[in-house]
Order: sequence, then structure tokens, then C-alpha cells
Amino acid sequence: MNTWPLPEPMEQALRHAQASAAAGEVPVGAVVTRHGQIICAAHNAPRTLHDPTAHAEMVAIREAARRLGQVRLDDCELWVTLEPCAMCAGAIVHARFAKLYYGASDPKGGAVEHGARLFDQPTCLHRPEIYSGIGEQPAADMLRQFFRERRGS
Amino acid sequence: MNTWPLPEPMEQALRHAQASAAAGEVPVGAVVTRHGQIICAAHNAPRTLHDPTAHAEMVAIREAARRLGQVRLDDCELWVTLEPCAMCAGAIVHARFAKLYYGASDPKGGAVEHGARLFDQPTCLHRPEIYSGIGEQPAADMLRQFFRERRGS
Repeated sequence: MNTWPLPEPMEQALRHAQASAAAGEVPVGAVVTRHGQIICAAHNAPRTLHDPTAHAEMVAIREAARRLGQVRLDDCELWVTLEPCAMCAGAIVHARFAKLYYGASDPKGGAVEHGARLFDQPTCLHRPEIYSGIGEQPAADMLRQFFRERRGS
Repeated sequence: MNTWPLPEPMEQALRHAQASAAAGEVPVGAVVTRHGQIICAAHNAPRTLHDPTAHAEMVAIREAARRLGQVRLDDCELWVTLEPCAMCAGAIVHARFAKLYYGASDPKGGAVEHGARLFDQPTCLHRPEIYSGIGEQPAADMLRQFFRERRGS
């Protein structure tokens, strides 16, 4: 039986997550699209860049805004392999993304359907359309394998 | 009657907030210190930098981590003129700041004592020591003046 193919932006986000792991970083990848066209992609890189804010989403958002020369990405979509944390969810609000697609849920660090549930706060200024579970299995498998190898078991 | 002087890092954060306003950006400034020594300072600059993540705190955190060559700033303090938003509070968690000092409260956009109250979430991995109200009056006055001038009234 064949698996239903993932949308190309999520496939690319997963490839970037794999690149994270190869660089010794927690495997998370992100892609920004505009009208279906890929603008840029990034992977999680806080250790590599000596930057505690360098989650995959943040790197991709900053690069997309720079390339497009606009501070609001309200005609763009963000694809990320893992449920965004509070920092990244906050950046998604500030950038005014139209849509957010993410793969695996993150009960410990996520802030969309867990923790602060940022987009559900009454003070939240913007809520993108949110689609979760796209690419969940490969994204979660990659994270599990990464942490298993780090524990050395 | 003389006003009790503010600590130098908050004075410098206020000067950077003033520089924000002069550049047409919402006046917020931030300073990172380590053992009382100023490492770097920054102001709010999303429009100037075409970067929706370029809040004063984010710019200062990234610069401090780069200068110190370390991804965790657990021996550092962050000084900011306004209560941090969810994005910035999340970054403060990731950077593991020891202490957070801020001036004015932000009932609409803040995420420390308002909104998501990020550091009070059960899933929050790190809570700095928090001191608020330092420099509140000049920080709030600057914001009020900025928005009054933008409304043209």
C-alpha cells in the first residue's frame, strides 16, 4: 500500500529536520510559502548559531521577511514539523501568517494545543488558520530517534 | 525633590527606547548585563529591519549570545522598558536568563503578568527572578507620547 504523499513544503521541512539532526540539533524543520511557492526553508540551529532564538520557525520567518522585504507575512503560510513553542507562536502572531501547518504535537514544549495555547488567549491579536498532524509520523519518529541516540540507548 | 536614580542598565534601555521612537518604531529598549556589566543594548526595530521578530529583547538576546559565544545566558540579566510579549518571554526561557527587570506593564501585549502569563505555565521550563516597575513612568510616558503623535491628536 502506498502512503498518501505529503505536500511538498512539509516534505522539505522534514528534510531540513533531518539536517538538524545531522548537525546535532533537535530535528525540527520549517518552510515559508507564499501562494504555494516556497520562499525559504530552515532548520533548528541554536547551538550552531549560538542563538537561543534560532528555532527553525524563527530562522525561516526572519529569512522570508528579509527576502520579501516586508514585516508582515499575511499572504504567507508556515509549515513546521513540530508544534510551535510560545516564542515561535508569538512570532507567528507578529508576522500575521495566514496559515500554519504543523506535524507532530509537542505536549512538553508546544504552545498551540498545549501549555499557553497562545492563539486561544483573549489578548491574542491574530490567529492563523491552523492544520495539524500533517507529517506527524515521520516528524515524531525523527525526534524519538534523535533523543534515543542522545541517551545512548 | 530629586528622583531616586534608576540603575544604569535601565537608563540605557530607556535611551534606546527613545532611539526607537526617533526611528518611527514603538519605543521599547533592552539591555543585557552579566555580573552588572553591560554586554549589549538594542531597540525595537521590526520595520527598520524588515523582521517581525526584531523586538528590542530579541535583538539584544541574539547579540549577547553572539558576543558571549554561548547559547544559554544563565549568568545574565535582561533589562527592558516594557513587559515582554509571549515571543520575547519564550526567548527569555530558552536563553535561561537569571533575572528579568522591566519597566511599564503591558495589559494588551504582555505575557508575564498578563495574557498567557508564560512563566506561570506548568510546562514552563525556566522562570527567571522577575522585577517589574523599574523605570515604569518614563517608559510608559514615552509610549503614550508615541501613540498620541501617531494618532495626530
